Amino acid sequence: MVVKQYPHDLCGGVVMIRPSNRAMGIEYAIRDVVLPARELEKQGIKIIKLNIGDPVKFDFQPPEHMKKAYCEAIMEGHNYYGDSEGDKELREAIVEREKKKNGVDITPEDVQVTAAVTEALQFIFGALIDGGEEILIPGPSYPPYVGLVKFYGGVPKAYKTIEEEGWQPDVDDMRRKVTDKTKAIAVINPNNPTGALYEKKTLQEIIDLAGEYDLPIISDEIYDFMTYEGKHVSPSSLTKDVPVIVMNGLSKIYFATGWRLGYMCFIDPENKLAEVREAIGKLARIRLCPNTPAQKAAIAGLRGPMDYLEEYMAKLKERRDYIYKRLNEMPGISTQKPQGAFYIFPKIEEGPWKSDKEFVLDVLHNAHVLFVHGSGFGEGGEMHFRSIFLAPVPVLEEAMDNLEKFMKERLG
Amino acid sequence: MVVKQYPHDLCGGVVMIRPSNRAMGIEYAIRDVVLPARELEKQGIKIIKLNIGDPVKFDFQPPEHMKKAYCEAIMEGHNYYGDSEGDKELREAIVEREKKKNGVDITPEDVQVTAAVTEALQFIFGALIDGGEEILIPGPSYPPYVGLVKFYGGVPKAYKTIEEEGWQPDVDDMRRKVTDKTKAIAVINPNNPTGALYEKKTLQEIIDLAGEYDLPIISDEIYDFMTYEGKHVSPSSLTKDVPVIVMNGLSKIYFATGWRLGYMCFIDPENKLAEVREAIGKLARIRLCPNTPAQKAAIAGLRGPMDYLEEYMAKLKERRDYIYKRLNEMPGISTQKPQGAFYIFPKIEEGPWKSDKEFVLDVLHNAHVLFVHGSGFGEGGEMHFRSIFLAPVPVLEEAMDNLEKFMKERLG
Repeated sequence: MVVKQYPHDLCGGVVMIRPSNRAMGIEYAIRDVVLPARELEKQGIKIIKLNIGDPVKFDFQPPEHMKKAYCEAIMEGHNYYGDSEGDKELREAIVEREKKKNGVDITPEDVQVTAAVTEALQFIFGALIDGGEEILIPGPSYPPYVGLVKFYGGVPKAYKTIEEEGWQPDVDDMRRKVTDKTKAIAVINPNNPTGALYEKKTLQEIIDLAGEYDLPIISDEIYDFMTYEGKHVSPSSLTKDVPVIVMNGLSKIYFATGWRLGYMCFIDPENKLAEVREAIGKLARIRLCPNTPAQKAAIAGLRGPMDYLEEYMAKLKERRDYIYKRLNEMPGISTQKPQGAFYIFPKIEEGPWKSDKEFVLDVLHNAHVLFVHGSGFGEGGEMHFRSIFLAPVPVLEEAMDNLEKFMKERLG
Repeated sequence: MVVKQYPHDLCGGVVMIRPSNRAMGIEYAIRDVVLPARELEKQGIKIIKLNIGDPVKFDFQPPEHMKKAYCEAIMEGHNYYGDSEGDKELREAIVEREKKKNGVDITPEDVQVTAAVTEALQFIFGALIDGGEEILIPGPSYPPYVGLVKFYGGVPKAYKTIEEEGWQPDVDDMRRKVTDKTKAIAVINPNNPTGALYEKKTLQEIIDLAGEYDLPIISDEIYDFMTYEGKHVSPSSLTKDVPVIVMNGLSKIYFATGWRLGYMCFIDPENKLAEVREAIGKLARIRLCPNTPAQKAAIAGLRGPMDYLEEYMAKLKERRDYIYKRLNEMPGISTQKPQGAFYIFPKIEEGPWKSDKEFVLDVLHNAHVLFVHGSGFGEGGEMHFRSIFLAPVPVLEEAMDNLEKFMKERLG
């Protein structure tokens, strides 16, 4: 059948190719503040960037033994296509790590290696969501959760987290948000953007709720060893029959953001996710495999010493303590103390700004510090902003000095 | 609203979590022959595997200067998140390569670096296809084309390729397959699985057809320098106003399959793909970035010497000539001579088999050689099989000896 294709948008006589509705629906609010920052930099203005959660842009690097293992793998010829589910030895190392950390009883067959947590999310949401189905996510939430759920035609539904209680999830609100279209509950702990560390009691309540409605829990544990006073508890360590998909990887605890390597594992004693896992396996096979030599580096990381973490966490704690103190001392801003990760999520208590985005742009242009506006993290982020505290104290000091001066001016 | 979730499949009283229809629709025919091969290997039987298109599993490796550049990048600390569109210097190197190879006039802004061609396909199909829309693909075709188009709710429509003419596309058939739902024409040249190298005249006809119906061309050029007698022509070198998306990467010409790095570039003089590119940019940002140190290796590869290719192509040509001769000499099989890539796609002319899959399984169990059945590559692959010729001649010799003996037995 030969039919003239429908005209798309006619634009000066040129027939434009129309993109999918799926892709057009994706928002990327964070970029709204990055572009103005680039403009200022082009004008020669120095911007202190506290917007990107990348330790490797500061004074952190993956440990030497991981770098060396990566290079050895390349030079020794491990440059072929690997198995789509991931290197067998790496999956064994992941099993050991998860058993030691969370006491779970899994095998290498329960592990899928991925190009970082992002690809794990692509697989999980792609394998779970049909049009109109809902995923419960924390509000505020790391933006790819919203973006990817929408990309697959789903509806991200934010459950409240309670700022006054250190941003703990509000399980009553979570319960109110469950409908007959809910497909899973996502938990990000330690949390991006709030730095919250969830209490064991709260996690147990989430598991009970998930069990009541036959929902799996998607547990993002990428910051698991990156805690200050408390220790991370995984829902995988608490579950009896509720399926938990744990996601983790090299990007944060192993300080290898640019290697793009992660994994998911299935803690599912009653095998309720059998079909979902089959679907995820198909998605993994279509993309052939994760980076092969990076997987050898991951084995070295997971099985190697973690003493580097002590030094790194001491630095991070000093920086957290510093930024927390400074932010709470200045007018118009209050903040909870982050218990994990390297983010702080202060509240804009008073001032002339109509929105958090307006605040962040005003700070950018007049204090030359770049934060991310809280509403970029979806519901619950309004009139807040996110700062990282990865930068050394002198850099944070300059940023806080600038911000304090700016706040005093604005609040007259 | 609190509603008890609908019951999914009830399986022994356990409520199963239902996967998405999207993911369940994906087939993966090639696996149907891999699993029986694994079973035989478990029994201690040696299988000669001519099924996977990975040169690095044989006597090929990425060139030393690329390996070294990769390691230097790691040791020097290039382990951070890069830009989502890819390293600027790499995009400049890609522009240089594409200008030199295809004479195109593009800038680094026209390039998107990806985790190999697979991710480029994910981005393109994700950004183009709404439910029920069609992509014209060659029949037979590399399986991820079918899989990914279906995954995004689209319909892969195979256009004929003419075996007697060295598997050239049948542009008349392509024209017949255009409907008001067609979104793009995909061209894989040199072709996987047929080894075809498309003629300039044919490509010009495809461009004219695409222009007539305002369709973009998706041009998979991953084997572009891997040709024997002829040379590869890219539609990007011929187009005037028809948008062409060229995909390429490190996996084949640079022999770095396991590094999972590739790119797409947009040759689109009238900017008809503006909105599609915007959508692709969003998808790229959600996944953050490609592997950072691997991109430094790619710069070294694209800008470095390509003398290794001469030696490698001499080996491949010897192996192609050998397998071509042997296959055509044995009873019941005929084959075209591949002009590019490292695949040969012979026809099963006669024999007791009702399907190509039955043939491939019979060969596997009785001649202990593993091919892929032609119908695994979709329409046009029926009663054919695909073999790689990456293995050294002595290995190919053993495989061909086994196959010839088997064919003589079966054909009595």
